[in-house]
Order: sequence, then structure tokens, then C-alpha cells
Amino acid sequence: MIISTKKGTPAEELERILHDFEQKGLSVTMIRGTDYNVFGLVGDTTVLDEKQIRANPYVDNVQRVSEPYKNANRLFHEEDSVIDVAGIKVGGKEKLVVIGGPCSVEGDNVIDIAKQVKAAGACMLRGGAYKPRTSPYAFQGMETDGILAMVKAREATGLPIVSELMSEDKIEEFEQYVDLVQIGARNMQNFHLLKAVGKMKKPVLLKRGLANTIEEWIMSAEYIMAGGNENVILCERGIRTFEKYTRNTLDLSVVPIIKEKTHLPIIIDPSHATGNWRYVESMSLAAVAAGADGLIIEVHPCPECAWSDGAQSLKPERFAEVVRKAREIARVVGRDL
Amino acid sequence: MIISTKKGTPAEELERILHDFEQKGLSVTMIRGTDYNVFGLVGDTTVLDEKQIRANPYVDNVQRVSEPYKNANRLFHEEDSVIDVAGIKVGGKEKLVVIGGPCSVEGDNVIDIAKQVKAAGACMLRGGAYKPRTSPYAFQGMETDGILAMVKAREATGLPIVSELMSEDKIEEFEQYVDLVQIGARNMQNFHLLKAVGKMKKPVLLKRGLANTIEEWIMSAEYIMAGGNENVILCERGIRTFEKYTRNTLDLSVVPIIKEKTHLPIIIDPSHATGNWRYVESMSLAAVAAGADGLIIEVHPCPECAWSDGAQSLKPERFAEVVRKAREIARVVGRDL
Amino acid sequence: MIISTKKGTPAEELERILHDFEQKGLSVTMIRGTDYNVFGLVGDTTVLDEKQIRANPYVDNVQRVSEPYKNANRLFHEEDSVIDVAGIKVGGKEKLVVIGGPCSVEGDNVIDIAKQVKAAGACMLRGGAYKPRTSPYAFQGMETDGILAMVKAREATGLPIVSELMSEDKIEEFEQYVDLVQIGARNMQNFHLLKAVGKMKKPVLLKRGLANTIEEWIMSAEYIMAGGNENVILCERGIRTFEKYTRNTLDLSVVPIIKEKTHLPIIIDPSHATGNWRYVESMSLAAVAAGADGLIIEVHPCPECAWSDGAQSLKPERFAEVVRKAREIARVVGRDL
Amino acid sequence: MIISTKKGTPAEELERILHDFEQKGLSVTMIRGTDYNVFGLVGDTTVLDEKQIRANPYVDNVQRVSEPYKNANRLFHEEDSVIDVAGIKVGGKEKLVVIGGPCSVEGDNVIDIAKQVKAAGACMLRGGAYKPRTSPYAFQGMETDGILAMVKAREATGLPIVSELMSEDKIEEFEQYVDLVQIGARNMQNFHLLKAVGKMKKPVLLKRGLANTIEEWIMSAEYIMAGGNENVILCERGIRTFEKYTRNTLDLSVVPIIKEKTHLPIIIDPSHATGNWRYVESMSLAAVAAGADGLIIEVHPCPECAWSDGAQSLKPERFAEVVRKAREIARVVGRDL
Repeated sequence: MIISTKKGTPAEELERILHDFEQKGLSVTMIRGTDYNVFGLVGDTTVLDEKQIRANPYVDNVQRVSEPYKNANRLFHEEDSVIDVAGIKVGGKEKLVVIGGPCSVEGDNVIDIAKQVKAAGACMLRGGAYKPRTSPYAFQGMETDGILAMVKAREATGLPIVSELMSEDKIEEFEQYVDLVQIGARNMQNFHLLKAVGKMKKPVLLKRGLANTIEEWIMSAEYIMAGGNENVILCERGIRTFEKYTRNTLDLSVVPIIKEKTHLPIIIDPSHATGNWRYVESMSLAAVAAGADGLIIEVHPCPECAWSDGAQSLKPERFAEVVRKAREIARVVGRDL
Repeated sequence: MIISTKKGTPAEELERILHDFEQKGLSVTMIRGTDYNVFGLVGDTTVLDEKQIRANPYVDNVQRVSEPYKNANRLFHEEDSVIDVAGIKVGGKEKLVVIGGPCSVEGDNVIDIAKQVKAAGACMLRGGAYKPRTSPYAFQGMETDGILAMVKAREATGLPIVSELMSEDKIEEFEQYVDLVQIGARNMQNFHLLKAVGKMKKPVLLKRGLANTIEEWIMSAEYIMAGGNENVILCERGIRTFEKYTRNTLDLSVVPIIKEKTHLPIIIDPSHATGNWRYVESMSLAAVAAGADGLIIEVHPCPECAWSDGAQSLKPERFAEVVRKAREIARVVGRDL
Repeated sequence: MIISTKKGTPAEELERILHDFEQKGLSVTMIRGTDYNVFGLVGDTTVLDEKQIRANPYVDNVQRVSEPYKNANRLFHEEDSVIDVAGIKVGGKEKLVVIGGPCSVEGDNVIDIAKQVKAAGACMLRGGAYKPRTSPYAFQGMETDGILAMVKAREATGLPIVSELMSEDKIEEFEQYVDLVQIGARNMQNFHLLKAVGKMKKPVLLKRGLANTIEEWIMSAEYIMAGGNENVILCERGIRTFEKYTRNTLDLSVVPIIKEKTHLPIIIDPSHATGNWRYVESMSLAAVAAGADGLIIEVHPCPECAWSDGAQSLKPERFAEVVRKAREIARVVGRDL
Repeated sequence: MIISTKKGTPAEELERILHDFEQKGLSVTMIRGTDYNVFGLVGDTTVLDEKQIRANPYVDNVQRVSEPYKNANRLFHEEDSVIDVAGIKVGGKEKLVVIGGPCSVEGDNVIDIAKQVKAAGACMLRGGAYKPRTSPYAFQGMETDGILAMVKAREATGLPIVSELMSEDKIEEFEQYVDLVQIGARNMQNFHLLKAVGKMKKPVLLKRGLANTIEEWIMSAEYIMAGGNENVILCERGIRTFEKYTRNTLDLSVVPIIKEKTHLPIIIDPSHATGNWRYVESMSLAAVAAGADGLIIEVHPCPECAWSDGAQSLKPERFAEVVRKAREIARVVGRDL
């Protein structure tokens, strides 16, 4: 960590700052400049709070050199983590995963959809039973009945199931029934929920928040991992920008960055990112070419009658076509699907 | 609601769309254009889901004319709502409120801080006992002990207390001890928590999310109000932008907009918005001049030893100075403080 | 265009508004609602100014149904435009283009770089002679000498040359020497320059502004086309967001959107978008998979001694590798390179 | 400047880097860490190009400690600069300036508007003769005739005139007729124009770009100042964010920041920032309370017939009311108007 102090900071104050950091077991080097003095701290700085240091009125700026995360950091874990989701491997050098299914579970028709996405090449089934909706007047999900319908779909197809957990009181239900527990974008910094999920035995799919930096996202993974659950899969689903032609802006550059900074798998959700089924194929192929470990795509046999997010859902035939092309792209970049 | 359909949409499809909306009790007018056809819907469109309508492949665009909120909407409630927080009135035409206190409660020293902020002119005490922190390795708050220390500070000073609720399992604790229940920026779209708070009897301070539009913010207030708790105070605390010299960008234009669109009170948090105590006075005075109903400011007797957010905390003397100047500004705009 | 008026607008005002639009040759339909009245305008609304209509205090909102651009609009020009750059075809269904070269021309070593990028598979040479730099103290480009060095490189390799035009006073120079005239991101809304370029005979590479919407970008293309120069190629180079791990956020979703909304070719610049050579390969392959018509990539034999933007430049060997993989991806999506 | 190198950088490479910086006359200190090595550079680092340093594959990160600007930097110029605009002083501790007038000059009616804004308390007249418009089909300004109409308005009222310069070819016209030369938001990084304006004798009003950081904005001022023209006034006019209820997001926190970092005056444009006359009063008063040195406000006697931007224009009576209240606020913060 690098700390610069303001012009005119008294010598005794500089001494005091130096002494404080040494007390914390850090090795400190001071560089005296003409307009600034700079302290370089060496040691475990993850415990320091930048904002607390900045509170000193003599401090001008504080900059981290090393990343604030440990468990997720590739520096301390060179190998790719491969996460096991009910037998399906996510990450590593081999197969990519494709997860398909409806935005919301609408009843037992999810069994048919499961068969269709499986036939199209998906290896997991997604479906929301608890839905985060901007409006209190919008459909909020089938709740437990939705989860049970997903379970039937798993029984019928063998596909592991993915669903979003919105609150701590459903953890037991998810631990019992769901194979991959999704934390949605709006809860990425619901730290209470992250801690609770850190104690679960099921793997977690952590979506990036609407306006969270990659560093904050990795820190949220770190929360789960620090709690004891190392099985985290990251999922990019678009960030909020000024652009209005898309629902969000899909940030595919996260793929090489997540691979560089962490050892965790990363998958892409082109449906929520674009909000428009017309752009899903293009972004799916781009994600695979970029090096992503998988895709999660919304599929519905009748998008215009879907209870939510129909505008971004593919029909099964179209989904099958996307999977077929994605497989070819995967092979070009040395993977399969 | 205005729906435009693509060029070349078959006549029978136009008929079908028209029929569907009429079935829902809406009155529909169709405008035939050269390149587009447009449907205008009149009636209660808050129940319609824009994204579902967009799922129809013949639909080009969907635009709302009326706002998607009812309870919070000034159109249906012309008078300013005045919220009672343990006897302190927030909103309306009279006094502004100033809320002061530490970012985190650090123990019984909060009693001394309470005395100091009261002496400086504050009418409520803030203090975090449950802290949302980006890093799992940062101080997470004193929890119940923090709340109890706040209660002692209230006993010593008579100031109502404000604290952040992060999870449903503490609702009973907050219902019992806290006067104004804060929902933090990171939980603004934690809909599960919003619903739970909608059943509380205590008033709610709803902070704007880091990257949420004003409309989404009002919709989150609508969640609480739809649950039965009409006592919502809005709080702007800066939004996330590309700018790096401030922690967030304080969006003061929300003040006239919230007053136009809703009947709810709005207060400003210049401390979190700027992240830097040097800018707090300037932004506090600006907020009052803009017409805000109050301020919530971080105060700490020794910012550089604060356990969190010291960089943005004012010392009590400086806080007193800000309150004094804010009072003068308030009088110019026809209010007091 | 759809115009909604406020509750309580007097009948005579509604009449007046209706009359005004009819005077302009538009066909107007009025929809009377409970809380709002809505006017639907049919006809050529590109000449109307939304902001002027909004100035009427009785007007609540104005929304366009049809796009504000004509020349660039695919609705009126279904076929892909193919732009001829000194014999190289850009756009359409066939070959993608790869443009390579240094950020800044540094002298006659650009001839060697040209040979290397040609050997690697590039079909055009890029090189900046006039450089837009944030700091007045940074290297500003070799100017005319740089252009002449590019001309020598073209003579030596046959590669058409691409360079950025920053001001009207160099138009003659560019008309004489440069094959593809680049308008940089910072000048995307330098309308004076756009008008001047609209009178040039050379094709134009129009980069998207740092924080411009896709619609504004197309409108800037429209400026050039309305001036008489229909040969516009669009180039996405990343937009400004809150993310700090990349220089900009590459928005690849523009590819299917530009193809849907316009008939113009679109190429991608992964070098400026990411600002980091480590992410260039990943984003290049993603761009091709997404359906882009080409790539423009910074290449330098010794990035650490480059006079500008070395951090984002590939060495020639690495560039050759990227081109090779991009070609394979291109074939999967039915193109070549 | 602080440079960190990657783990495993060979010793001879570290030596080479150290030697390179010493060659450039900088004093270098190296801090050896466990996972990183860090170089601290002391001396004039404004000439170094961060991106070039980052191009070295062994370099992990580069961070500036001192600001990259000199002429505008308050560190080297402690006193506030006071800019003289045809006898009106802008900046310093005394009077604030209020600039009023139409968005576009529409003919000799600008003389009447000038009289009205003067009567309301304005000390300068604004009016656009060259208009940057997103659409090539929108009104582009009266050009020289507009400037001449402004000159007549000045003759009639004595008010100095402010107008936007969009291109180098009009510099002579502006040098002759205009008192304060505005560089618009879209040209903030039109470096060619900045250099040209740096050679003018007239003071410059430099608007912040739509998505430019404060640092970039100051660097654009630095361009003008480095060219020899030290008379720069900064103007905030809102930045682009995800929010849709306002045209832009007014960033008032720039006021204390600009005062801290530079010695230049800063004024606020609430009209362009909000895009809505209803919010102009609120934001004007906020700006004055925040400590701004002035306001620039759009005024039109008949906003709904204005040729551009009527939606954000105040009628003269309303403008007079805003000026009256702003004066009272100014007095509270120790200024006048």
C-alpha cells in the first residue's frame, strides 16, 4: 500500500504515521519528495482500511498495490478452480456449460422446457421461483411450488437445477432441493446473505451487480469463500451505463480479467445483459470466443406468453441453433461444449 | 401506455393485440402510420409488464405515459407527507431535520457524540451497528451491542435514533429500539427486506441505490408503502459515475424531482456522497438551498481513529458550523432548521 | 412521435397544439386518457425538435416512435452497404478486414511495421500522425511527416492507410494521401468537422464517442452522409463506465444493434477499448464471433519503447496469432478474413 | 509517481527500469515487497506518460502522486485567479456573476432579451450563434448574423457577450466581437481548437465534457493556459449518467474540488444540466450555496417558441426571481451578486 502525505505535514506527524504502521507489523519505507512524502507499506495490507487512513487530515491519497482479496486471488492459487455442480464440472480447460430455461417457473410446463433445453444441448436447467421485480405489482414468483416443479423437471431429465435465492429464510429449502444457488445482481452486496451462503454446502452462482466494479464483485466472492464455501462461479449479466438501446451493457472484457485475477470460473448471461432475444446469439458466440466457461440463457416455448422477461427469451429451436454454433466456436478456442 | 408495432405486422396480429388489451379492461386507440402502427392504452396500466409486451416479435417498442407507482405518486396525493419520527416531523413546509453521528457505533462513546451533535443543532442521532462492508475482513459493526449503546445515547439526550437494518432477522430488535429504520443503498432492491419493512410500524429511511434511477428508487418506496407502511423518507447519497475525485456523484437534482413526482420527504447525505469531509459543508448548504427536507451527516470527534469512514466525518465543531450556516440558508428558502 | 400532455391542460390549448402539428403537414390522432391526453403524430417527424415541443408547459413528455435518422437507417436501405477503401471492401457478407499498425507513427520504422502486419494478415495499415492527447505535455504526433511516412509504408506494401484527422485545415492533406479518414472518439460530436468530412471523397472511419449513445453515433454518421459522403464505417472502441480495471468498457452488443438499425459496416478496436494488450486477443475473437466486419488493432515491435499507448499494443508475432484465430472464428460465423 | 512491478521480475530488469528513470533526471527509491516491488519517483513527472510505462510487461501498475497539471494547479498558485471579462470580474472573493440569455440567437429579439436579463440582474448576455446539434436536420444557428445581433444587444445594454466557438475558422470573428469565448462540452477535448484558443486574447469559458473527469477537464484548461491564455473560467453543465429523469446529472461537488485543486473560477449551468426549467431555480440556489462563482442560465420570453432548448429556458420574470433569491444565498456564504 502506498500512502502520500500533503505538503507541509510536520515531521512529528510523519514519525507518528510511520510508527503506527510498524506497530501493525508492516515494513515501511518513506520516500521524501519535494511536494509530497510517500510511505510504502510491505506485508499483509488486506486488514488495513483505506478510508480510515484517508481520515488523517495530513494524508493526501492512499493506493493499494496488492489486491484486497486472498481466497479468490490467482496469485495464491495458480490452478483454475473446477466447481462440481451435481456431477457437472464448471471451469478448467475442458467442456463449457450451457444452462437454459425460463426466467420464471410457471408450473409443470418447466418439465417440457427442461426436455427441450436438454435436447438442444444444455447441461443444467435454470428457472426462477423467487423473482426480484422492480414493481411490487409485478409477478413475484411461484416460490416453493416453483422449486418443486424444478425438482420434477430434474427428475424427468437428470439436469441439475439453478435458481435464485433471495433471502436467508429459504436456505434450508435451497440446500435440500437446488443444485446451484444463484445470488442475483441486486443482492451482490447483500452481505448478510453472502455470509449465510458462505456456510452452505451447495455451489453458488454469483451474478455481478448492476453497477459494481470487478473488484467489488471478487470481494463478494471473497465473502462467500471466507465463510467456508469455496465453490463460487461468477456470472456477468451486463452493467448499467448511459446506453438506452440495450437493457444493460454486456462487459465481456471481464472474461480475460477474471481469469487473470482469480482462479474461479466465469459464465455469461446474454439474456439479461441485452434484454432482447435478437442480440442473444451474437453475444453468446462472443462470450465463448472470449474464453468464458459457459452460458446461461433464457428459453421459453412461447416468449410472448412468458410471465416475465419474455422479450429476452429464445424459443427452443433458436436456442438449439445457438448451442450448435457456440460448440463450433468453443472448439476453435480449444474447448468443447 | 404506448405500444408501437413493426412495419409489416399482419392485420390479424394487430387485431389480436388490440383484443388482448381490451380483454384486460383497457381502452385502446390505434394510430396507423406509414412505417409503424401505434396503440395507445388508457386505464390502469400499472399491472402491465412492459417486458412481456416487448416479447411479442411484432412489437417494436413500449413506452409508459403514466408513472408505474401509485402510493408514492403526487398525482394522487397532492399534499406533502409529513413523517413523524418519535415526535420529530420530517417533510412539509416547516423545519428541516439535521441528523448527525458516527458512521459506526464504537461503544459508549456514542453518548458523548450524541451530546455534541445535539449541542450543534442536530435533532436525531445516526450510528451504524450493522455495517455493509465491501471486504469481509473489515469491521462489520458491534451489532446488538451497538444498538443498545445508541439506546443509551437516546436516553441521555432525547434524540431519536437512526440505524441501518441489513436483514430480516433483526426486525424485532429494530421495532423495539430504533426510531427510524434505515435501508442502505446496497439493499435498495433487496425486495424481500423491503416487503418485511413494509410490515413494520417504524418509519423508514430509504437510501437511493448506487446506480438506481429515481424511478426505481420510488418503486422501492412503493414496495414499502404497498406493504402498509406509508412512512417513508427518501435519502440521496450519491450515485456511481466515472468520476474518480469523489467517492460518488451527489445528484442534487433529485430534490426538485422527488418533490414533483412524489409527496415524500427527501434528505441528503453529503458524507457518503463525497467520501471526503472537505466537501461536506459545501454540499450540505447546496442541499438546503435546493429545497431538501434535511441532512444526514457523519460526525466523529476523532475522524482518524474512527472504525469506519473517518475520511468523510466532520469533527463536532465543524459540524456545528455547518448547521449554523445551513440554518441561514434554510431561512432564505422559506424554511427553518 | 407521441406527445403526452399534463392533467388539466385546457381544451383550447389541446386544440392549438393539434392545429400546430397539422400545419406542419403531420397527421395527428388524439387519445383522451383519465390523467393524460396523448397525441400521435404520423408523417416525417425527423424535422421536429423534441426539446422545443417539451418547452410547452402543458407538455408532459415526448417520445419518438421512428428513428431520427434517414440516410443511415436500414428501414430505407435494406442491403448492407459495402465501402470501398482503395480496393478493399468493408462490410457485406464476405471477408472481414483487419487493420494493424502503431498508435503513433514514429518515423520510417512504420514501413517495417507495415510489412510485419501485412505478413500477419492485415489488409490495411493504421498509424496516427495527429494525436489527441489528454495532456498538452504529451507527444502530439509527427503531423505531416507522419502522414508521409505512412505513404512510404503504403508504397512498400500496397496496404491502404488509415489515419486520424483532427482539424479541418488538414483536409486537403488527407484527401491527397490518406485512404480511410478516421474521426476519433473525442471528435465524434465535433459537428463542424463532421460537416467538412461530409464533403470529402475519401471514406470515413467514425469512432464512437467515449460516452455517446448508439443513436448519437448514428446521428453523427448521418451528418457525414447528409453532407454527401455515404462511405461511413463505424468503429466501437469502448465506452466510459465506472469500471477501473479496463481503460474503457468494450460494448460488443453494438454489433447486432448497428446491423439491425443501419446498413453500415462496423469494426471493433479492442486495443483502445481495453487499454491492455493482455485482453486484446480475447476481445478480438469475441468481436468476430459477434458478427463484426473487422478489427483495428495496435501493433508495435517494441511496445515498451512506443511513443504512445504501448500498454495496449501487440507485438507482431502475437498479432499474427490473433489474426490466425480470428480467421477460424470468422469461418464458423460464415465469413472469412 | 509510483510504479509497481510484477512478482518474478528479473533483477536485471529492475535495474534497467531504475536506470531509465534516473537518466530522465528523476530520483528513484525502490521498495522491495514479498509479491511486488515498488518504485517511487521524485521530480517533474508531468512529462512521463503512464501508458508508456505500463507497456513494459513487467510493470503491474502505475499511479500518479502529484497531479499532471501545472499552470492550473493551486499548489503553485495559491491565490484565486480573477478573470476580467470586458470589465466584469469573475472569481475571487467578491461578486458572483449571472449570465443570462437565449440558447440560440434568433435575430434582433436578442436585444429585448438582453434588456430583460439586465433588468433582472444579469451582468453578461449569453446567446448561441453556432449551435452544436445532435441532428444534422436541426437548426444550426444564425452564424455571423447571430454574432452581429449579439453585438447590437451589447451596444444597447452594455452587457459583455458570451458565445460558443465551434471551429478555428471563426477565431478572428470571435476575437473581434465576443467578450467571453465559450468552448462547448462536445469540444472539451477538441485539442486542436483548445490550442488555437490558447493563442487568443479573449477569456475562455470552458465547459466540462459530457463524460469527462474533473482531471481531464483541468487538463483541457491546462492546454489553453499552456498556449499562453491564462484567462480560463470553468463551467459545469451536467454529466452523463444512467439517470433518465434529467437530461444530465449536475455534479455540484465539482465546486469545492475545483477550488481545492485549481485557482480558476467555476460557474454552473443549471439549464443544460437538468434540461428542464422546473429544476433550474433549485439548482441555481444550490450552486450558489455550494460556493460557485456564478451562473449561466437560459432565458427566453417565450420558451415554447424558442428555436432550441426551450424546455430548459426560464421566462424573464422567473429568471429575475431566481437572481433575487440567489443574491440572498450569496450573502449567506459571504459573497454578493
